[in-house]
Amino acid sequence: MLNPATPEFLDTLRDRLPEAAFRTAGPEHLEEPRGRYRGAGLLLAPGSTEEVATILKACHAARIGVVPHGGGTGLVGGQVMQGGAAPVILSLARMDAIRDVYPSENVMVAEAGAILADVQQAARGAGRMFPLSLASEGSARIGGLLATNAGGLNVLRYGNARAQCLGLEVVTAQGEVWHGLTRLYKDNTGYDLRDLMIGAEGTLGVITAAALRMAPVPAASGTALFQVASPRAALDLLALARDRVGDNVTAFELMHRQGPEFLIEAGLEARVPLDPLPEWMVLVELGLPEGLAPEDSLAAIFEAAVEQGISEDGVIASSQAQAEALWAIRETIPEANRRIGSISSHDISVPLSALPDFIARGGPALQALGEVRINCFGHLGDGNLHYNVFPPEGRDRGDYEDIRPKVKEVVHDLAHAFGGSVSAEHGIGRLKVGDLERYGDPVKLTMMRAIKAALDPNGILNPGAVLRG
Amino acid sequence: MLNPATPEFLDTLRDRLPEAAFRTAGPEHLEEPRGRYRGAGLLLAPGSTEEVATILKACHAARIGVVPHGGGTGLVGGQVMQGGAAPVILSLARMDAIRDVYPSENVMVAEAGAILADVQQAARGAGRMFPLSLASEGSARIGGLLATNAGGLNVLRYGNARAQCLGLEVVTAQGEVWHGLTRLYKDNTGYDLRDLMIGAEGTLGVITAAALRMAPVPAASGTALFQVASPRAALDLLALARDRVGDNVTAFELMHRQGPEFLIEAGLEARVPLDPLPEWMVLVELGLPEGLAPEDSLAAIFEAAVEQGISEDGVIASSQAQAEALWAIRETIPEANRRIGSISSHDISVPLSALPDFIARGGPALQALGEVRINCFGHLGDGNLHYNVFPPEGRDRGDYEDIRPKVKEVVHDLAHAFGGSVSAEHGIGRLKVGDLERYGDPVKLTMMRAIKAALDPNGILNPGAVLRG
Repeated sequence: MLNPATPEFLDTLRDRLPEAAFRTAGPEHLEEPRGRYRGAGLLLAPGSTEEVATILKACHAARIGVVPHGGGTGLVGGQVMQGGAAPVILSLARMDAIRDVYPSENVMVAEAGAILADVQQAARGAGRMFPLSLASEGSARIGGLLATNAGGLNVLRYGNARAQCLGLEVVTAQGEVWHGLTRLYKDNTGYDLRDLMIGAEGTLGVITAAALRMAPVPAASGTALFQVASPRAALDLLALARDRVGDNVTAFELMHRQGPEFLIEAGLEARVPLDPLPEWMVLVELGLPEGLAPEDSLAAIFEAAVEQGISEDGVIASSQAQAEALWAIRETIPEANRRIGSISSHDISVPLSALPDFIARGGPALQALGEVRINCFGHLGDGNLHYNVFPPEGRDRGDYEDIRPKVKEVVHDLAHAFGGSVSAEHGIGRLKVGDLERYGDPVKLTMMRAIKAALDPNGILNPGAVLRG
Repeated sequence: MLNPATPEFLDTLRDRLPEAAFRTAGPEHLEEPRGRYRGAGLLLAPGSTEEVATILKACHAARIGVVPHGGGTGLVGGQVMQGGAAPVILSLARMDAIRDVYPSENVMVAEAGAILADVQQAARGAGRMFPLSLASEGSARIGGLLATNAGGLNVLRYGNARAQCLGLEVVTAQGEVWHGLTRLYKDNTGYDLRDLMIGAEGTLGVITAAALRMAPVPAASGTALFQVASPRAALDLLALARDRVGDNVTAFELMHRQGPEFLIEAGLEARVPLDPLPEWMVLVELGLPEGLAPEDSLAAIFEAAVEQGISEDGVIASSQAQAEALWAIRETIPEANRRIGSISSHDISVPLSALPDFIARGGPALQALGEVRINCFGHLGDGNLHYNVFPPEGRDRGDYEDIRPKVKEVVHDLAHAFGGSVSAEHGIGRLKVGDLERYGDPVKLTMMRAIKAALDPNGILNPGAVLRG
């Protein structure tokens, strides 16, 4: 059992921490963005790894829970603890330095509180790119992005957050510092604790800094939006593109017409420049070596797709502004979704070849529950769909509260039946603890609990996230 | 304390395992290739995951050690236990099926005993490639390659064994089966036990099968051998190549002239087609999208390198045969090394920008110990050098036994001082347990021991490998 964090407990830390570490928790620390979790807790905002260690040592000794807090943009309640003994909310926001950039190594070392957009900017400043890119990049912080193994738009080519990380600095539950900030591309000395910490959502240790890979900037990039006959045709198009340019396909995003229709309904500006609006379309981005014009490569791919009956219409961006306008369609859909208000949102993945069947079966299964609209879009090349369910136009999500659990169950059962995942990139947090218990492999769960007990015997780290406390 | 495996113990398994599982251990199971470890033990060769589970359940109950055995090609003694209670040697060789190939997903599922060359072949049969490639690919098996997180020639572009794996089937120390054979590119449901098992060298579980990624075959590939003025010039050449073709550089191998000189001395055929023989040279391979001629890209890179004073000589392969002849130089060096006989071999990595200084300081430090020859070659793009030390021509390694520990210490101390690793791709096994204790982060070691105790409380899995028993 954990003890609550009290002002008296914080007072015991005042001689070991500077005044700046003591702050008042705001709404951003006590609520998650969708409003599903509301928590309590006392805020500490350490300014250094040593201060994080001091706090954890004290919390470990006093058996007080610690909820690490980065940008607060997570979608599964991993950053807010609702109920139970009030924890220390450990904000990493003050530790936002880019400690070093090593352009000749394609490496940078950033503290956990560094905002993703600032990390991207630092890479650009060194003539490189940091490939992780997602909707909340203006506020999401590196520590949280790694703790949740965030995904986003460039996973197809560059991998998720895990693949961008070479080394970590981590404070353990006991308040010891693991100095694992290696800038090495290869290091086979002992267990891969880096990848264990990545994706553990702050339940096994607190990430305080990371050595990150930067990537070379492609000599030229090109963007196109192609109509496709079906989700299966979209997969065929991906295969066709890869046959020609290998894995220089940097993004491959599927959109059902529901997404662009929501843009109109929600009064947002982005528009699809294809008429008629296709039922299915894909946004393709190539990043190519010197000597190739992306427009030519995209035109050749389109021509072959037309010949094979995969596509009938499309537009290839001929300027940076046109490319950005195409990307705006895809990137504005989440905002449209928020405005429309979903009954239930899902972040599923299935094996690539099962995607068309998943989509074909999902619709009828959901319509059997009631009249709903499905906005199916996402990272097709990764097998990852944001498969979100909405009320009909003019109806409110509030009217559908009764079927919400059933909607989620139908979608998750179907993904699971295809060998898929019920959390492709958002993590477990607190929202999907039950899903993990329901769908997860029991032997894996047993091992996870054993590791949690071994590394955090008092159970202070992000209590109730990932594993039931 | 562990109990020895006895014939009587094996007899207790005869009603639960088929006759075919009972075999006699041969020299390949009891000695490692360099002859540094000789072990004892009784061989079991299960034919299925269930049989592996049966064996582990029994060994766990009887507290009998289990040494997993794949192709037996490891270089650090991870596959042979010398001393202690005789273990069960668990050969995965009979489990060599490619269970399934999913070309449209770029995924294949292979059993642990599948030989790397067969996995490569299966990928080629599906119009794809399996990028892992190394000298022992004709005998190394997938289970061992994953357990040791093997590296090799294509890590620069495709990553090491870890990066090729989507999912694992693992039998735990207790004989339970974790069914983690997912074909998903994204799955953020719980701790990353896949990557924990990869690189754990059979000390946390026994890998029985893996879901592996295949990669698209580049539309065209090209190979060149360039003289470079120095190791620093080699790094400049890598940066220059990446500025032009991004990460379509698939291999970037540094060779000091000592390697080609050893080829001659050892009576091997491969020859460098540059005269005079350069002191330093790099083997470059590009894998490019459709529309580019690799010879042209390589010529443009060479031209820029000459202009910048990076290189003065080079040869670009104009046929597959010429490319293979260039690769033969690099790939025959390990055999030349074996014939010459090293005093001490090292598999170090350092941050890329520290490589030139490491090389500059290593030579004098070693020459201070005695007259030696250094064959420095390896995966420059990964910061990984095989930095091997030999006696002068005509002298025998046997005469240098007294300085061998000191040679190793000098090289490892130097790599460590640069923030490097003393095992970039070979792992810890039994050979480097002391190195891990000497150079490893103490907090990491504490966490490793806690995880080992949590997952294998009786300590039966590969006793004495990675962590002292």
